[in-house]
Amino acid sequence: MARWRKISDAVVRRLPLYLRVLEEASADEDKKLMSSQELGERAGVSPALVRKDLAWFGEFGKQGVGYEVGFLKRELRRILNLDKEVRAALVGAGSLGRAFARYNQARYENGKLNIRMVAIFDNDPEVIGERIADVEVLPVEKLEETVQELGVRMAIVTVPAEYAQEVVDRLVKAGIRAILNFAPVSLSVPEGVHLATADLSLELERLAYYLDS
Amino acid sequence: MARWRKISDAVVRRLPLYLRVLEEASADEDKKLMSSQELGERAGVSPALVRKDLAWFGEFGKQGVGYEVGFLKRELRRILNLDKEVRAALVGAGSLGRAFARYNQARYENGKLNIRMVAIFDNDPEVIGERIADVEVLPVEKLEETVQELGVRMAIVTVPAEYAQEVVDRLVKAGIRAILNFAPVSLSVPEGVHLATADLSLELERLAYYLDS
Repeated sequence: MARWRKISDAVVRRLPLYLRVLEEASADEDKKLMSSQELGERAGVSPALVRKDLAWFGEFGKQGVGYEVGFLKRELRRILNLDKEVRAALVGAGSLGRAFARYNQARYENGKLNIRMVAIFDNDPEVIGERIADVEVLPVEKLEETVQELGVRMAIVTVPAEYAQEVVDRLVKAGIRAILNFAPVSLSVPEGVHLATADLSLELERLAYYLDS
Repeated sequence: MARWRKISDAVVRRLPLYLRVLEEASADEDKKLMSSQELGERAGVSPALVRKDLAWFGEFGKQGVGYEVGFLKRELRRILNLDKEVRAALVGAGSLGRAFARYNQARYENGKLNIRMVAIFDNDPEVIGERIADVEVLPVEKLEETVQELGVRMAIVTVPAEYAQEVVDRLVKAGIRAILNFAPVSLSVPEGVHLATADLSLELERLAYYLDS
């Protein structure tokens, strides 16, 4: 495992995309073999980059034959730690949190995502006790013990920007090492913790660049 | 403008981040000058990269003095086409669409985002006519004429995966050149149209990589 740590985030970012292409090809078309050319085309990257990315993790393809879809799919799942169910918690049951919880649960249930939302937290007494996507909303005071009890390893943060750092600090203290944050604010985490920010405003602002004035 | 087309997406991706840092520094701290060192630290990139990115667009900083916050802010807004309000439409008023519409409108109203949602479309008769974030949901049949009438230039797609390509095709035909897609599926657009995918499952799967097994 230690060796993988050196692999750049840009490479890691493309792995789930390759996995999705392979899953769709095997589910929808019962495809057994795929060339790096085809995998690249479907994933929107060059075949050379596909080969280079995968070479970091081993010898998966055969010259002139391509990749064995089932095998590469299993290997990518293992590399991404998705060969077993990953348990996640969501903090912040506002409208974005609810939408995300439902979206995530639907993808988990139809077998498209091996990440399962097992806990939802909020600090609003009106919301606590409610069920969202079949999960009861718990008071945020129970965060640490619930993370421990349920084996939660990943968290999604959908609280207002001003509370996001505080929530992230608590999650880190509780042992969470992978966090997806939706609050439009930059947060700091200690080394060894991975924080991704799904900053939807930044995405829109970036797109505006491409509009002709 | 033509010159800008050659600037890489990676550079463009960081511009809204710099803009946010500058906006926060001027609003919260009334800061007038900022070094590339400080701008880089706050944006989470190296000072050298800040200087290199900004140099694509002109001479903004002064050696030993840094950047004039107000000036650079205005310049970045202009470069990003955010000096004037950009009108956007949302297609798909399900739970994710609703959450996004409310989130976007809140940021627009408090002056944090110059992108305004002026139209929402859906094909469900139960939903058409409803108001979300103060915008009436219209039947998707009205897409083309509404885009024209209201001067919509950007779109957010929150429809189920199987309808996403069809919706994107209609938006492109209606003249939209910048689209943010939330459906977990790869879509194709003609050259000259910019499509960003906010694929939340891919983000989670990528994060799982960093979990120790």
